[in-house]
Amino acid sequence: MEATFRALSEHGYSNLRVRDIGEEFEKSRTLIHYHFDGKHDLISSFLEYLVAQYESDPAVPADADPWAVLDERLDQCLFGPDVGDFDHWERMRVYHELFSHARHDERHREAFNEHYETIRGNIARVLEAGIERGVFADVDVDDMTQLITDVIHAARARKISLGHDDAPTQSRRAIDEFVLSALERDAA
Amino acid sequence: MEATFRALSEHGYSNLRVRDIGEEFEKSRTLIHYHFDGKHDLISSFLEYLVAQYESDPAVPADADPWAVLDERLDQCLFGPDVGDFDHWERMRVYHELFSHARHDERHREAFNEHYETIRGNIARVLEAGIERGVFADVDVDDMTQLITDVIHAARARKISLGHDDAPTQSRRAIDEFVLSALERDAA
Repeated sequence: MEATFRALSEHGYSNLRVRDIGEEFEKSRTLIHYHFDGKHDLISSFLEYLVAQYESDPAVPADADPWAVLDERLDQCLFGPDVGDFDHWERMRVYHELFSHARHDERHREAFNEHYETIRGNIARVLEAGIERGVFADVDVDDMTQLITDVIHAARARKISLGHDDAPTQSRRAIDEFVLSALERDAA
Repeated sequence: MEATFRALSEHGYSNLRVRDIGEEFEKSRTLIHYHFDGKHDLISSFLEYLVAQYESDPAVPADADPWAVLDERLDQCLFGPDVGDFDHWERMRVYHELFSHARHDERHREAFNEHYETIRGNIARVLEAGIERGVFADVDVDDMTQLITDVIHAARARKISLGHDDAPTQSRRAIDEFVLSALERDAA
């Protein structure tokens, strides 16, 4: 999977050949063909692996401050998890390239849809816990999580495709200013 | 340019050859080579043409209701301009595919950056006019237009890549609920 990642980073999706992955792989190319049914199967498995790396949702203590948890979760989505040499942005570049091809590919679309629902669900759980405890105002959680997830996606896309390196920081500020402020309104 | 559009729609960017464009073109292929310095020059010109199609910013009467103007502008961005057989979503599919490759291409990046600033500028002018007339609250126009432009981009991307056909409608509702509501707060 890491060999696939390196080959995708270097060659891009459209021009990638199984041979390029083999060249990044210490084992023999035969092994790749033994385990995967061609380029498409291998890339789909890679996408599922990539998405799984982002799915860790650390258990949150029941008495944690909902504002602090929300804050941390949004920063993780926008700036990447803080885990040593795991290169978040290199991975996101591959993620966004595959995303732009997903309309041609049912299995990729499914992996992205699941990931979208995971990100959204992680944020929704924090909101729901805060609403239940009366810390957050009673907002429409579906609408708010969809808005936040979309802004996160677009901030990444602008950073990656257009070189707007400050996009995640700008988006975080705009989310605080316009979206999270609704959690304060009318709060008990 | 329309031949380029049809060829891009059919073959995608990565696999496109100048020959494919020639096949969509009634005139001779020599004519393409006479006017353009290869595939990259032709696609860059096409992108500039595509973006220009969206840049019409109809003059707004000075006494128009800022809410109505804002409403119309957001709907145009999310649902496409209402101009006969101009196929907004076919064009957006090509737009988003080229967007995902823009990090490799300075000229494309420039065209997208200009378009991003145009969309943002069109919305900013409506907000500024409304604030000046005391109809809208005095919000941070930069932050709000960036947030709205990002949500529009992500809604299109979800519809196109993930098949979320209701994404523009959902996003419009979330923008109204969480973002535009800030224009009401503290308004005179």
